[in-house]
Amino acid sequence: MGESQLDQVESDELFYIPLECFQIARQAGLTQVDYAETFAAYVRVNVLYSIARAWSGHPGTCLSSVDIMTWLFLTRIQGLTADFPDGSDIFFSSKGHDAPALYAVLTGLGLLEFEQLHHLRRLGGLAGHPHVETPFIQANTGSLGMGISKAKGMALANRLHEAPKRIYVLTGDGELQEGQIWESLASAVELGLDEITVIVDHNKIQSDTWVEDVSPLGNLDAKFRSFGWQVERCDGHDFAALDTALASLETATGRPRLLVADTVKGKGVSFMEGPVALAENPLYLFHSGAPNEVAYAKASAELLDVARATSQRVGLNELKIDTMRRPPRKPALVVERLVNAYSQALVTEAERHPELVVLDADLVKDCGLLEFREQFPGRFIECGIAEQDMVSQAGGLARRGAIPVAHSFACFLSTRPNEQIYNNASEATKVIYVGSLAGVLPGGPGHSHQSVRDISALSAIPNLVLIEPCAEVEVAAALTFCLDGTDESSYLRLVSLGWPLPFQLPSDHSLQLGIGTEVRPGHEVVLIGAGPWLLANAFHAAEALQRDHNVAVKVIDLPWLNRLDPDWLLDTIRGARHVFTLDNHYLDGGQGQMIASRVAEHAVSIPVTRIGLTELPVCGTNEEVLAHHGLDVPGLVRAVTASLGVVAP
Amino acid sequence: MGESQLDQVESDELFYIPLECFQIARQAGLTQVDYAETFAAYVRVNVLYSIARAWSGHPGTCLSSVDIMTWLFLTRIQGLTADFPDGSDIFFSSKGHDAPALYAVLTGLGLLEFEQLHHLRRLGGLAGHPHVETPFIQANTGSLGMGISKAKGMALANRLHEAPKRIYVLTGDGELQEGQIWESLASAVELGLDEITVIVDHNKIQSDTWVEDVSPLGNLDAKFRSFGWQVERCDGHDFAALDTALASLETATGRPRLLVADTVKGKGVSFMEGPVALAENPLYLFHSGAPNEVAYAKASAELLDVARATSQRVGLNELKIDTMRRPPRKPALVVERLVNAYSQALVTEAERHPELVVLDADLVKDCGLLEFREQFPGRFIECGIAEQDMVSQAGGLARRGAIPVAHSFACFLSTRPNEQIYNNASEATKVIYVGSLAGVLPGGPGHSHQSVRDISALSAIPNLVLIEPCAEVEVAAALTFCLDGTDESSYLRLVSLGWPLPFQLPSDHSLQLGIGTEVRPGHEVVLIGAGPWLLANAFHAAEALQRDHNVAVKVIDLPWLNRLDPDWLLDTIRGARHVFTLDNHYLDGGQGQMIASRVAEHAVSIPVTRIGLTELPVCGTNEEVLAHHGLDVPGLVRAVTASLGVVAP
Repeated sequence: MGESQLDQVESDELFYIPLECFQIARQAGLTQVDYAETFAAYVRVNVLYSIARAWSGHPGTCLSSVDIMTWLFLTRIQGLTADFPDGSDIFFSSKGHDAPALYAVLTGLGLLEFEQLHHLRRLGGLAGHPHVETPFIQANTGSLGMGISKAKGMALANRLHEAPKRIYVLTGDGELQEGQIWESLASAVELGLDEITVIVDHNKIQSDTWVEDVSPLGNLDAKFRSFGWQVERCDGHDFAALDTALASLETATGRPRLLVADTVKGKGVSFMEGPVALAENPLYLFHSGAPNEVAYAKASAELLDVARATSQRVGLNELKIDTMRRPPRKPALVVERLVNAYSQALVTEAERHPELVVLDADLVKDCGLLEFREQFPGRFIECGIAEQDMVSQAGGLARRGAIPVAHSFACFLSTRPNEQIYNNASEATKVIYVGSLAGVLPGGPGHSHQSVRDISALSAIPNLVLIEPCAEVEVAAALTFCLDGTDESSYLRLVSLGWPLPFQLPSDHSLQLGIGTEVRPGHEVVLIGAGPWLLANAFHAAEALQRDHNVAVKVIDLPWLNRLDPDWLLDTIRGARHVFTLDNHYLDGGQGQMIASRVAEHAVSIPVTRIGLTELPVCGTNEEVLAHHGLDVPGLVRAVTASLGVVAP
Repeated sequence: MGESQLDQVESDELFYIPLECFQIARQAGLTQVDYAETFAAYVRVNVLYSIARAWSGHPGTCLSSVDIMTWLFLTRIQGLTADFPDGSDIFFSSKGHDAPALYAVLTGLGLLEFEQLHHLRRLGGLAGHPHVETPFIQANTGSLGMGISKAKGMALANRLHEAPKRIYVLTGDGELQEGQIWESLASAVELGLDEITVIVDHNKIQSDTWVEDVSPLGNLDAKFRSFGWQVERCDGHDFAALDTALASLETATGRPRLLVADTVKGKGVSFMEGPVALAENPLYLFHSGAPNEVAYAKASAELLDVARATSQRVGLNELKIDTMRRPPRKPALVVERLVNAYSQALVTEAERHPELVVLDADLVKDCGLLEFREQFPGRFIECGIAEQDMVSQAGGLARRGAIPVAHSFACFLSTRPNEQIYNNASEATKVIYVGSLAGVLPGGPGHSHQSVRDISALSAIPNLVLIEPCAEVEVAAALTFCLDGTDESSYLRLVSLGWPLPFQLPSDHSLQLGIGTEVRPGHEVVLIGAGPWLLANAFHAAEALQRDHNVAVKVIDLPWLNRLDPDWLLDTIRGARHVFTLDNHYLDGGQGQMIASRVAEHAVSIPVTRIGLTELPVCGTNEEVLAHHGLDVPGLVRAVTASLGVVAP
């Protein structure tokens, strides 16, 4: 089914299997395999439901891992009781973006309140990536490669407390590109941690396409064996095979255990299954994001058919299916799409700069690199999920005359290869880093993906200029600056979420180091910030303050996160009663701290109040997240009026 | 020879082989192997010389790698000419602490000014770890595991420019514990980068002791083969064997090449050679640090004997040996030794906290963990050079009821596992991180080890309190605070260098969150900082300002790097003309920015001038480094008087 067909119809009806059906199946005296097949068929329906209802999630990897999770929870994990989540054997997924599958399993078993299934990626609901506040979630994951290390720590603590438990860790296969995976293998062998079983959900597709095409894993079994692990391999959708493989690993004591489970990404939905989907389209479209209305209708019909047929085959009564209407999608707005603008600017600049080389860490689509790769395949380096390797490669390229531009999500790019970026900077070469998905929005993926610490993590690096554009035209200007306007390296911080801007920058907008742009005039109060939604909210807040409180508020777009022209700053705030800095970031180490410390340097007696994050960002819809952290328009108005002592007329 | 004997005699005479002897050997028409043996024998003398003269360096790893470097430079690396350092084939060491060996090779070949040999680890001389400002240094290294990635980047740039060169990367064996090594292997195979040859200097000893006892590497050949590399193995001190192994690798095209060279750490000096040294002492004493006077005398005598005998055997005239007197060691002072104090405090606290578990990343001696390991072996986890793995293990331990305390040098601990620390913090467990070797001193190792970015890199992490004590008594108080005074995680920033303090904190000193201690009274100017040498210099500067300029200067020890009590701050600075913040750190993201931004928040019209690093720290003696960056006593006096407009009377 082509994309165009998928777009033709609409429906707002969603389907899920209620808890009572799970209970009936459980109590029906089925064989283990029949029960598992029934359970997994129900779980698949509910996985798709929760993702569709949230309008976001990772369907492909959930569907590939459902059978593995099912078999572990039905046959291996001991001591499961809703009253004491910490008392059971331990299971967690290191890749983490399969959380909806785990939630569907846990709700199906009555271990997690069933009602929660309706609140995936909502404030107070189930986090987009695993969070330990949820019962039976053993570890916060979502940033990749940490699982085996965490499992070792848990095993050692359990041994210290003489409370050994089995520990099952699910990993992705793309995730195995992370160095930490290999770093973590040795001591598990040395310490004989045979309570740890790692299962690779080997669905052979990572974010964009085949693992084999991104960064081949080679002979996985041989690799893990060479590190001293006990290794088995089986079909990860065949419960009998899973059982045999696990049983075989259990006979070998004294060594940690690893099972390569061959699975199919998107398993159970014909057009989401890896080989089918990648025959239709060169990019795998069901890694992240909810299916649209038509795709949901078709997929849920398939999954419901299987659930019904399985129920029937094993002799259960007719399956009860509950429905839920979801609110319609919001109407499309004209928004600034910074990643799209970046994508175009990159191609334009690449034509002017033959030495420009692009590096990607398995996010070719999300980082806006498809066009570049298409036009300059010889200058495109796909590194896989290997940020440290990517950044040090960029360093080597720069040392030999190339201008490398390295990409990932801001949360990973600023932290995972943090020392490698510093090392490159110490060589005084020019490397451009581009981190997309910057800031607290979108709110659905949760804190592992909400990059609100990247300014702090990078701002002290010498020879590295941090820039956050707010508009498409500013993205292009920023990239031009990085290439032609400075000898320093730079970090481009890109908000990925499209957002309508209530102001416009001139089409010939260019950047001057350390200097901002006034986007709304006003003489009493100055708001300074960067990025599209934050400045848009600041603008609307300024309008409200003018209208409701008669306060004249100037709004400044300052795309420079670690550079500031003091003369410009003093001119800009001169005569104001109060300055507010706005950070799409923690207050510590953000842009506001830079501005405030400059004001203090000059002993200007205008108070500078910093507005931004003061705690771990919550997971939820964009509106929920902004409201919670006081970064929506009403929140900004409240913060300003509170500081000014203004009372509404 | 025991430590006690080594301490008995003194000498200030150092020996080196002058350039002319290298030239004579080169022009003597020797066989390749005879020339190499002569060259390497001379190089060993000069390696020991330069380290002894610098009073610091890494003798063991230099001596193990000399023969490998010799053979590569004499037979493999093409295009070596002093006029065009970038034109040759590429060699660099990924471990980097063997830089003195490379310098001795380069000076011996006339590729690097011979005079520089006398200026190891001096300002304007040869950096402690490789720096690209030095001719023929191809990459900044010293932080481990980046070499293969960098080589790949260089190879790809060379291919783009159609200027392929051979690239030789030397790694350590302990270094192979870093995940980035394994992360970097796949694409080299996929891209067929056969211009890259990696040579493992497999001397089998890492910082403290045998690799096998720290974190065994297992079957190295099998591991690298399982990743698809072409692998050979040979005796790394046998030139003929090296030649055969390299030649064999050269016949296999299309795949990257790896040679495991079996070597002996400290090769050539009897008592430094690994098996001998570790039979004498459970810790390998010649990893870092210069040999003392007696050890130097004995070691140089052995190396000179070999150099003379080799010259004679190959038929050269009598060897000329030059001498140099080095300045005597400085007299020992009574100093605050924070790491020693930490070591004791840790043991004391461990007795009170049975759930306290210590994790180490191959720095058991430098992090002060010997006593703990001795007393609590069951609660000590040696992780090897695997900081990401260590930190995520700590996260797992904390999730299961232990209180993990994770250690490394501050430069590595704050950056390498930066995302892992954030991930742990997101779980709201308690983990204590202890980073030693914090700050710009000692100045000898250079910027890879000068941790002046750790506050910035960590300060925004929620639930993580950063603390930098200045005195032994404050170290103990800080550790008590971390364990009993807070539910948050913490980072203890420890300056390792012993330093005499001109003030004393009370023996019952305790810490109150966000509040500092006045260590010198004064009402006109306030200096605020943390850590021993910075506060000592501030104190002396205050005395000088009082004496020479009649300015009354208050000095405040503020051990809190990301927490500040605003009321205390406002009280402390009230009535002052000027506030100066002092950072043993870059200005961006340092403690001073936190203080200044609080002052701005309250619109206090006292200027806040921030003093700290504004550029990559230089390498040199401690005095040179402080003077260069204006952080010595005269520098601080200058900065204050300049800001105050004070003229000396």
